[in-house]
This record gives sequence, C-alpha cells and structure tokens, in this order.
Amino acid sequence: MRQAGRSLPEYRALRGEHSMLDLCRTPDLIVEVTLQPVRRYGVDAAILFSDIVVPLQGVGIGLDIVEGKGPVIDRPIRRERDLDRLRPLEPSADVPFVLEAIEALADDLAVPLIGFAGAPFTLASYLIEGGPSRQHTRTKALMYSETHLWHRLMERLADITLSYLRAQVEAGAGAIQLFDSWVGALSPDDFVTYALPSVERILNGLGDLNVPRIYFGVGTGELLSAMANSGCDVLGVDWRTPLDVARRRTEGGVALQGNLDPAACLGPAHVMEERARDVLRRGGGGGHIFNLGHGVLPETDAEALARLVDVVHAWSPDDE
Amino acid sequence: MRQAGRSLPEYRALRGEHSMLDLCRTPDLIVEVTLQPVRRYGVDAAILFSDIVVPLQGVGIGLDIVEGKGPVIDRPIRRERDLDRLRPLEPSADVPFVLEAIEALADDLAVPLIGFAGAPFTLASYLIEGGPSRQHTRTKALMYSETHLWHRLMERLADITLSYLRAQVEAGAGAIQLFDSWVGALSPDDFVTYALPSVERILNGLGDLNVPRIYFGVGTGELLSAMANSGCDVLGVDWRTPLDVARRRTEGGVALQGNLDPAACLGPAHVMEERARDVLRRGGGGGHIFNLGHGVLPETDAEALARLVDVVHAWSPDDE
Repeated sequence: MRQAGRSLPEYRALRGEHSMLDLCRTPDLIVEVTLQPVRRYGVDAAILFSDIVVPLQGVGIGLDIVEGKGPVIDRPIRRERDLDRLRPLEPSADVPFVLEAIEALADDLAVPLIGFAGAPFTLASYLIEGGPSRQHTRTKALMYSETHLWHRLMERLADITLSYLRAQVEAGAGAIQLFDSWVGALSPDDFVTYALPSVERILNGLGDLNVPRIYFGVGTGELLSAMANSGCDVLGVDWRTPLDVARRRTEGGVALQGNLDPAACLGPAHVMEERARDVLRRGGGGGHIFNLGHGVLPETDAEALARLVDVVHAWSPDDE
Repeated sequence: MRQAGRSLPEYRALRGEHSMLDLCRTPDLIVEVTLQPVRRYGVDAAILFSDIVVPLQGVGIGLDIVEGKGPVIDRPIRRERDLDRLRPLEPSADVPFVLEAIEALADDLAVPLIGFAGAPFTLASYLIEGGPSRQHTRTKALMYSETHLWHRLMERLADITLSYLRAQVEAGAGAIQLFDSWVGALSPDDFVTYALPSVERILNGLGDLNVPRIYFGVGTGELLSAMANSGCDVLGVDWRTPLDVARRRTEGGVALQGNLDPAACLGPAHVMEERARDVLRRGGGGGHIFNLGHGVLPETDAEALARLVDVVHAWSPDDE
C-alpha cells in the first residue's frame, strides 16, 4: 500500500521534524519510513519511501516539494536547450542515499522490497508545467506542437529512470514499480504514440535483471490493453475498473495489482470488508496482488488498514 | 462547446468588469455571454451560460466562485440538520434571472438552446467538501458511513435540479444537459448504488417535456453502460474513451456526444483536424453530436475553434 505511512502517527511525527525532501535524501530516515507500515500491518512486501522527483533533483533540476501542493520546479523544461539540464543519472554519485537505504533495507526486511520511480509522461508533466496540473495543458501542447522535442525529452527521462531502477535492483530491490500518475489524461492513441515508447524502453531495459516489473497509473481503464504490452509483468489498476473487466482487457497477459478504492477504508468496517472481498473475488484468486487502487488517504485510520490486511490474509477462493 | 467563451476576448472583457456570479445572475449578461460563441463560431446549438452552483445559491446556500479555485461553500453540508438548508427550489422566485435570460435567448437564437444544471453527486461533493476536491474524501466517507443521510441529500438535490431544469425547458430551452463533473471518481458499483438513482429521478422527471436529455461526466469510461440506462437520450463522453468503444459499451441505446481532447485545439492545425476527423469516423456518421470531450481550455485560440467548426461541418461519412 503506497503512502501507507501517511496514516501513521510515527510517520507524522517524523514529518513534523523533517521536510519531505529531507526524508527522501537521508538513508536512515528512508529506511525508517519504509519499515513503519511493514511493522504495523504485516504486509507481504514493502515499497521504498521516496518521491518521483528525487532522480530529477539528482541530475541537478532545482525543485522543492511544497506542503499541500506537491513538487514545484524552479525553471520548467519547455525548449530544446532546456534538455541539456537533463543529463544522464549516475546513481552512485547522484542518489547515493537511496542506494544506501535499499542496501540496509534488503538486509533488514523479511519481505521483498519494491523499488520505485516515476514514469516519463508523469515526470515530463511536472517538468513542463512547473508543478502539479489538472489538465496538463502545456504538456499536451508541447507534445502536439513540438513532437521531436517531446520524444527527445521522453528518451532522456527514460534513460534517467532506467539507470535509477537498475541501480535500485542492484542495491537489493526485489521488484520495481514504475509509477505513472498522470498518464490516464491521455487518449489511447496518444498514449501509444507519446508515452508508451519510453515506458517500453525502461521496462525492456530491466528485462535481464529478472525482477517483477509493476506498471501503475490512475484512470487508465482505456489504456490497460496497451499498458499490458509495455513489458510489465504486473499491471496496477485503480478502483474505477473492476478487476474482472481489467482481466478481459489485458487478455490474461499480465498479473493485476489493486484495486480497492482508498476511500472505502474511511467507511464502517463492514463496508470496507465487503468491498475488499469483492476485489478479491474479481481478482479471481490467482495472478492478482491485492492492494489499494491508489495511495492511502491521509485521513485513514491505522486500525482500518490493519483490519484490511487481516481480511485479505484470511480470504480464500474456497470461501466463495 | 461548453466554456467556449473562455477563449474569446469579448468574454474576457466582460469578466474583467464582473464577477462570475454577477454574470450568472444578470439576464442581459447571461444572454450576451451565451450568444458570444454562437456569433463567432456558427455552432449548431448554444449552451446556457451559467454555473452549477446557481440553484444552490438560489435556495439560500452561502457560496462564492473564487478566481482560480472554483465554488467555495460558506458552511458545508455534513449533518442531518444541514439538510434543512436545502429547501425546494422555486425557480420563478429563486432564479428569475436565468428564466428571463432563457426567454430572451429563445426569441433571439436561430439554433436550439441547451439548458444546464449540475447533477446531484457533483453538487454534493462541493457541498460536503466545501469546495473543489481531488479525492472527494469527505464525500465518499459520508456516503459509506451515513448512507441514509446520503440518500436524503441526493433526493433533495435531485428535486432542486428537476425543478430547475423543468423551469428552463418551460422558459424555452430546447434540450437540457445534466453535468456530472466528478462522478468518474466512483467505481461502477458505487455509481449504481449512490449516484444513479438521483440521476434517474431527474431525467425521468423530465420525460413528459419531450426535449433531448444529455448526461455528461468526465472519466466515466467504466460507467457508460449504467449511465446509458439513466433515462438520458444523449450521453456525453470525454476523450479518454474512443466513441466506437463507447458505442459498444452502451449497446447503441443512446446517441453519443463528444469527444475531441480539448488540448488537441492547442496543437498545430493538422493535428487538430486529423483528430477531429478520427472522432467523426469513430462516431460513425449517425447518432453522434460532435463536441469537445470537456470544456474549452482558456488557452485556446479562437481561430482554432472556428477552424474546428468548419472541419466538422465539411465532413461527410462519404469522405472516408
């Protein structure tokens, strides 16, 4: 469960003392925040605590993560010459704190650690817009108007992301998640033309490492069939698309991850449990990793998540 | 094309002199802003200039429309006793300016006028959250936790909306659009349980008036089949779902409206035109009203929209 920490008092205490970027750049703190939900909930895997902008800062992009807003970029990337600011990532020099944390986690954890990076379309949207965006207007305008520049930008971001994820696996991550928050803003044709090639470049570039590759986006119902052919082993699905529908669209080619609406954890226990069992049923008892359909909402009660983990662990297809 | 005015200098000039709510509450200004895009673009229908919160203000809810943010509610609706603040709408007393504008427009316009109202789920989200929301956390929490209160709230909002739309038709609107911006945040099961009944109440309540009823939401790919059974005659589809896919999901039961990505109007002419023709092809040359898949983006060039209208008018299925 991504962002599970946000519901924990022990995480909020750390956030009271440190900025988000400080947490993301300090090995001991990355380790601690990654471990917090594993200790509390007994989940079956841990996901690296980080933010998708960390490797961008690593190559020298000036940015900050602003409370209540999200990442803000000092000088947006909008012209050919701005590309020079996106040099290749040298993980051991640029993001040593992430690798150090992964090495420590790989020793400590009894469950697999999932590495984590943002996908090129989503990174590009932050870089071009200069921050979070609802409509991705500048991003799409650039994509349509300066297609050559767009593809060069996507290639640079793919190469940064590939180096970053390879280094995470080499440091001890047992799986990786490529996180594409905004890609659901694209029509299926635009996804295939403008976003998919860079995703394939990354996922295929990890093929020799033999770790499961998870690809996740939000609002991607119409993109699932193309996403399933990106080179991923597991496809994350948000709560909008029932898993049995997602299975038909992906023709069984990949495992599915998801997809309880995070808001269901804010309701009474019986509502959450009923919906969790519905997800498990639709997941079909195989080729399915249970998860929320998006990150944990900050308002979520830690007890509710603990109960959810119990419900999932207790479920068996034979119960149905 | 909803919000077509935002791209027009003559609209921006009026917005420089008047607040959004002033524009929505002054008959002459409603008429002028509704006519502006019709004059410029030669479109085949006009949509009433308004905002979905107008009838809420009409029944006495304190609110404002804040520049760059959206509607903000003074005292959110969160408890049983808050429902008393949502009394029935008496259109001729509560929103006379809207009816007066529609009467004038019905006389002036050579094309049909589409009336306009927000749907209960979307109105409820503004009322409960107190303003625009990305995750609709409080809304869903209330929906899951206090289901009886939720349904009573939705009934009140449905009755307000039904009175409002009936009055618009009686004043001269030749069609209506029920606008459900946020309903795509719900899973299909939640849509059917928590949102659809109030939509049916409105659309069926308009049945005797014999005007086309258009129902539109954003990010509703998985909801289209349920939405098509809501009592609407026309279903709006955003750009995420290709129209041929939408046609299969709705089993041909309704006409479709849409669905060019508004951002396509920011690209070069050939990109916009190619995509517009793709929409027309997928629409199949019948049972399809061409439109953007969402409102016009403020950055859009007025010339681009004029060209788009020409492309659509010039197209024929025989060209393919």
